[in-house]
Parts: sequence; C-alpha cells; structure tokens
Amino acid sequence: MNRPFDVEEYRARVLTTKGRMADAGFDTLLAADTANINYLTGYDGWSFYTPQVAVVFLALDDPLCIVRGIDYGGARVTAFMGDDQLYGYPDDYVQSTERHPWDFIVGVLKDRGLDRGRIAVEKDSYYYTAASHEALATGLEQADIVDAGHLVNWVRVIKSTQEIAYMTDAARLVENTMQAAYEAIAPGVRQCDAAAEINHAHYSGTPEFGGDYPSIVPMMPSGPGTSTPHLTWTSQPFNNGEATILELAGCRNRYHCPMARTLHLGPPPAKLADTSKVVMEGLAAALDAVRPGVRCEEVVAAWNAVINRHGVVKDSRMGYSTGLNYPPDWGEHTLSLRAGDRTVLQPDMTIHMIPGIWMDDWGVEISECFRVTETGAETFCDFPRELYVKT
Amino acid sequence: MNRPFDVEEYRARVLTTKGRMADAGFDTLLAADTANINYLTGYDGWSFYTPQVAVVFLALDDPLCIVRGIDYGGARVTAFMGDDQLYGYPDDYVQSTERHPWDFIVGVLKDRGLDRGRIAVEKDSYYYTAASHEALATGLEQADIVDAGHLVNWVRVIKSTQEIAYMTDAARLVENTMQAAYEAIAPGVRQCDAAAEINHAHYSGTPEFGGDYPSIVPMMPSGPGTSTPHLTWTSQPFNNGEATILELAGCRNRYHCPMARTLHLGPPPAKLADTSKVVMEGLAAALDAVRPGVRCEEVVAAWNAVINRHGVVKDSRMGYSTGLNYPPDWGEHTLSLRAGDRTVLQPDMTIHMIPGIWMDDWGVEISECFRVTETGAETFCDFPRELYVKT
Repeated sequence: MNRPFDVEEYRARVLTTKGRMADAGFDTLLAADTANINYLTGYDGWSFYTPQVAVVFLALDDPLCIVRGIDYGGARVTAFMGDDQLYGYPDDYVQSTERHPWDFIVGVLKDRGLDRGRIAVEKDSYYYTAASHEALATGLEQADIVDAGHLVNWVRVIKSTQEIAYMTDAARLVENTMQAAYEAIAPGVRQCDAAAEINHAHYSGTPEFGGDYPSIVPMMPSGPGTSTPHLTWTSQPFNNGEATILELAGCRNRYHCPMARTLHLGPPPAKLADTSKVVMEGLAAALDAVRPGVRCEEVVAAWNAVINRHGVVKDSRMGYSTGLNYPPDWGEHTLSLRAGDRTVLQPDMTIHMIPGIWMDDWGVEISECFRVTETGAETFCDFPRELYVKT
Repeated sequence: MNRPFDVEEYRARVLTTKGRMADAGFDTLLAADTANINYLTGYDGWSFYTPQVAVVFLALDDPLCIVRGIDYGGARVTAFMGDDQLYGYPDDYVQSTERHPWDFIVGVLKDRGLDRGRIAVEKDSYYYTAASHEALATGLEQADIVDAGHLVNWVRVIKSTQEIAYMTDAARLVENTMQAAYEAIAPGVRQCDAAAEINHAHYSGTPEFGGDYPSIVPMMPSGPGTSTPHLTWTSQPFNNGEATILELAGCRNRYHCPMARTLHLGPPPAKLADTSKVVMEGLAAALDAVRPGVRCEEVVAAWNAVINRHGVVKDSRMGYSTGLNYPPDWGEHTLSLRAGDRTVLQPDMTIHMIPGIWMDDWGVEISECFRVTETGAETFCDFPRELYVKT
C-alpha cells in the first residue's frame, strides 16, 4: 500500500507539533482524535469505534500508535513508523466491563517511561470519552494531566502543497457528484434512489482516482425538511414544487472538499429565489473580504452588511476550517466564520463557507470551499453558484 | 414525516428504562449515545458531531431532547414528544473555546429542577467526551453524578416485533448488496468502482424500501489487506488470485443486519479453502448451540470445540449484539460472544456471529446475523454460506 504522503511530510508534522507542545509546556501528547492520529502517523482504517491513540513524546523521534489488536495489521500497512512504535491491545479489552482499552494504553506509557511529567490529552475529541479519561487519570497517578485543546487541529489548519492537491482532487469529485445529484433528482424519483446515484458518482470518481467515504453521508433534506440541515434521505419520492438542499463532499485520501447547493423542482417561490440571490451576493462579498491578515469576524461582517441590507438575519456560523477528517465531521474544530472569532487568516488555510439560511418550513444553502492565497480567496470548485431550478 | 414506531412503543421503552433506573437508584438519566437518544425519543439526524442528549427523569412522563439549535427543526419532525420537551442551543456554543454545549444542558436541567439527586451519565458513550463530563460535573455541584454504564443499551438488547421486522427488511437489503458485490468484483475492476456498485445496491434497495446509511461503510480489504479487517477501498484494481473480505450491512430505519463473506478470484489456495470449511463447520456448531438459557461463552465453546480440533485458534470475540445504531458502530456494546461472557441468551436477542480469522497476510470471514427464538437461532439472511469462488 502506498501512503498518500512521504515519510518526510509526516515527520515534519510531528516536528511542528512538538514545537507547539514545547511552547505549551507539554512533555507528552496523547492524540485520540481520529484525524490527528492519521495526520501524525498515517494510520488509516474504520477502527475508531474502539479506542486508539497516537503518542507524541518530546524526546522521541517518531510517535507511537496504539490500536486494537485486530487492527495492528492495518497499522503496519498504513502508519509510517517501524513496528516497534506500534501496539495492539488484546481483544478482551474491547467493550468489557472489567477492563478498558485505556488501561492498556496506560501500561504502554509506563513501559516506555512516559508516565510522568505533563501529559496533554484531547479532552473534547469525539472518541475520548469520560470513561477513557478516568482510566488514564487513575492509571497515571504521577503525571500532571492537562488539556491539549485542539493543538494538533491547529497545526492541521495550514495545508501543505500535497494536501492542497488532494483537496483539489476532492473538488473534481464533488463537482461530478453534485452534477449527478442534479440529474438524479426529479419528481417521482425516490430519495433513496437519488442517494444511490449521488454516492455512486462520488465513489467511482474519475478515471484517475475514486472517492473515499466522506466523513458525512449526503445531506439532502427535501420539502419541509429543508428547514433543518441534517436530515438524510427517505424512501419517499421528490415532489414537484419542492426544494432539496444538497450538502455533499468529495473525499480523496481523507481530504474533503464540501459543497452545498439548493435545487428546486419547478418554478421556485419568490421567497426562495429572492433569498438565494441575497445569499449569493453575501457569499461573493464575504469571499471578496478574504485575504491574509483579515480576521474571521471581518469576513462575517462583510456577509452581514449585504444580507442585513436585504432584511435577512443569520445567527449560526457561516463557515469553518476543513480538510482531513473522519466521521462524524469534516470540520476541523478550529476557526469558525462567525462574530467574535478573531482568528487571523493566513495563506493555505482551507475553509468551507456555508451561509445556510433555515426558516420555519424552508431553507437555502449555497456554499464554496476555498483556499486563502497570498492575495485573496481561491475557490476549489468551478461549479455554477446558483439556485438550480429543474423544470 | 412518519416515525418508524408508534408513540406507544417509544413510551414503553422509556417506561422500561425508568424501571431499570429505579432499580439502580438513579433519579435522572442523561443518554448521550446517539442510538439511545433515537431509541428513547425517535430523534434522527446526522447531528451527533455536536453534543446532544435525551434526558429521562423518573417523575416525568416523556423525555427531554436537547440538540443544537439548527437541529431543533429536525427534532420537531422526528421526536415523538411535544415542543415543550425539545431544546436547541445557540450556535455560539458550537466548537467554542469559551462555552461548551454541556453548559447549556446544565442550564436546562437547572431550569427544570433536575439538577439534584443521582444523575446517571453514559461515561463510555462515543460522543460523551471528557470535556462534556467536566462541564456537567462543574455545573451540577449539588448532584451525585454516577455512571449509567450501558443501561439503555441493555434495554435495547431484546427486540420488539416491529424492530425484528425492520431487521428482516435489512436482511433483504444486505442479501441484494452482497450479490451486487459478487457481481461487481472482478480482476481489473477498481475497488472504488465496486464500492460504488455495492452502495448503490444498498441505498436503492427494493421496490418497497431503500436502504439507510449503515453505521459503517463497506469493509472490503483485498489481497494482503485481508489480514486485517477494517481497511476500506482504494482506487487500485482487484487481482486474480487474491481474496476480498466483504463485511456489509443492510440498514432500514437505523436497524442493521450485517453479513460478512469472503470472495476469491480464481482457484483459492488450499489454506483459504480449508480454513473456510473449518469456519463454516464451527459457525454451524455455534448456531446449533444457541437457545434461550444458554450463556454466550457456551456458544463460543461449541465453536472452539470444532476449530481447535482442526488446529485453528481464534482469540478475538466472535460476535456481538446488533440492531439500532449510528456511526461509528453497529454493535450494541452489550453482550459479546467470547470466553468469559456469561450473559444468558433470551428470545428476541439479535446477534451478529462473525468468527473472523486473520493470519499474517490473509484471512477469512463468513458470518450470520440471527435472532434467538424460543427454541434456537433463526438467521435473518437466506444467502449461501460459503467461500465464494469467482473464476
């Protein structure tokens, strides 16, 4: 199996992470976030439903990777480190009432002499449960366990040339996929059949490469469901006179390029057509405001200036950093485009700008994923930015 | 939107849960497990990447459901309770460094006077992070916060007639899907194109109903990858002379029926053919051992008696309870088929028996999902139980 990055790139990531750790006064970092594990080690597999961790130690060159025993083979195939850095825990740790996989991780840390000093954990990482933390804290009595926050996520925020290349590939995938959605959705067609076509287009991809599983399945609320963003498909047909919101992503080597569009079957009601125009005008203004040195909240201000002038108000955030990820989310949990976020934009940040408007029984989403360049914003996709009306 | 169950069925689940809570001495239960939230309230959506919870209070008829504000509309559409039981938190709680969604949840509990007594949380539920628990513990100083363990999961273990019906539907879906996989996989075909066909078959489903997204994407390690179970597809072609392990599931209204099979392109090597026969013999013996009153470990003993006689050894567990679930897992985290699990089998338990064998550079999986009946085991699928050789 070919890894998607050179060993040098993984080692550079580890080095940057160590620098941030040193600044924060951490001796050891336990990364339980699936994307962070992949980022630091290359390990890839749908195994995040049992505990796993990458261990970065300031005085050690390469990280350790600890996974379930039956996934040890997967770690050997995908992680860049030598076998002596890989551990698999016995299967009787899995979903047991007597022992916890984090007990095993504690044992490895003790064996390697990493059970002291300031040990940072990712306290709000999806799969780092309260029980995991209790097992660690109980096992490492001599350590000072602190919150790493999103330290590694913030390293991930600036993308390398190869990462940008994979997101560009993902853009080709999502363009194809959105086009397939436009073609599949029609009055009388079952939502599940359209979902089948959408996924097929994505996985099959291009002649050069196929699509990976995105971190989120196609979001495609239809009709009154468009008032809320996270419903998936049903076995019911699409209806003439109704809108469908499509939030999709291309995914290549776990790197995402998301895109949202709104489709209407038949002539759209004025409120939808008008609000779509406002969203597109606001989106363009917000993209125009992007350049290095500008703060996230300033981009939001540019958006608000447009939509408020048209009497539209939006309370929820209008974007977030994206790139490498695993289910359940393709966001990176770092910068958000929203009021109060004072993060300063820098070149090679990659952001999904998705100013969704959800009303009582309808809504609209039109989005762009872009890279911050030296001078502005460069969108990954080349796809018509419009309310798509199919008659 | 039609809910998949009558309101009476949801209320019966809540009532059973309350009984278990009373036995355990819990006043309030905070269920953060996505499947438990759905089970107790009906709430359904791909929104589990931000915190959400179902609150069961002994003295309150219906549970509360607290989700992110933009998912409130989804809760109104899918949960069975009235609007006064639903809460959505403002978007500035999402991935913020200043406030945590569990701070909002604490506020709701205080408003409803539920901030005292013994409050049980699901400490090892995927999305109940260490940070979530800290926010709760900090906010509810007057409460006695204890671990609920898998209390609701154990309620879910015994399936109702309607739940069995959905799993039976899911069996039809996975039979079609496995057949599609057999047809799609051939020398020279890219793995991603086969994945596209597999998913298409599942989502499109039958003329009566389509498939939901399963909790896990198709697992389909190929060639040397069959030595490890959790690799997904690549853009590389399948090769003649190589095996592919397929672990798939049908999913209907979030109820799963998983199935694993092993396919070989061209005449299989003797070790694979021989081991497959041992697995099938052992699987049959284990299914024969199933009946109410028998313990999980006794079923495993029946399996081991067969495979050890043939010189095959397996350390990892050979099955688990399945049914309702969300990513990242379709297992229920209750009973396991493994040595030491003394759970007594009861009618209408539903179990995926998957005795996978993974060697240094090859492996085999052949599985059955079954229901415990009054007298034995009834498999959900009617699909040839064999090493599938395609020449």
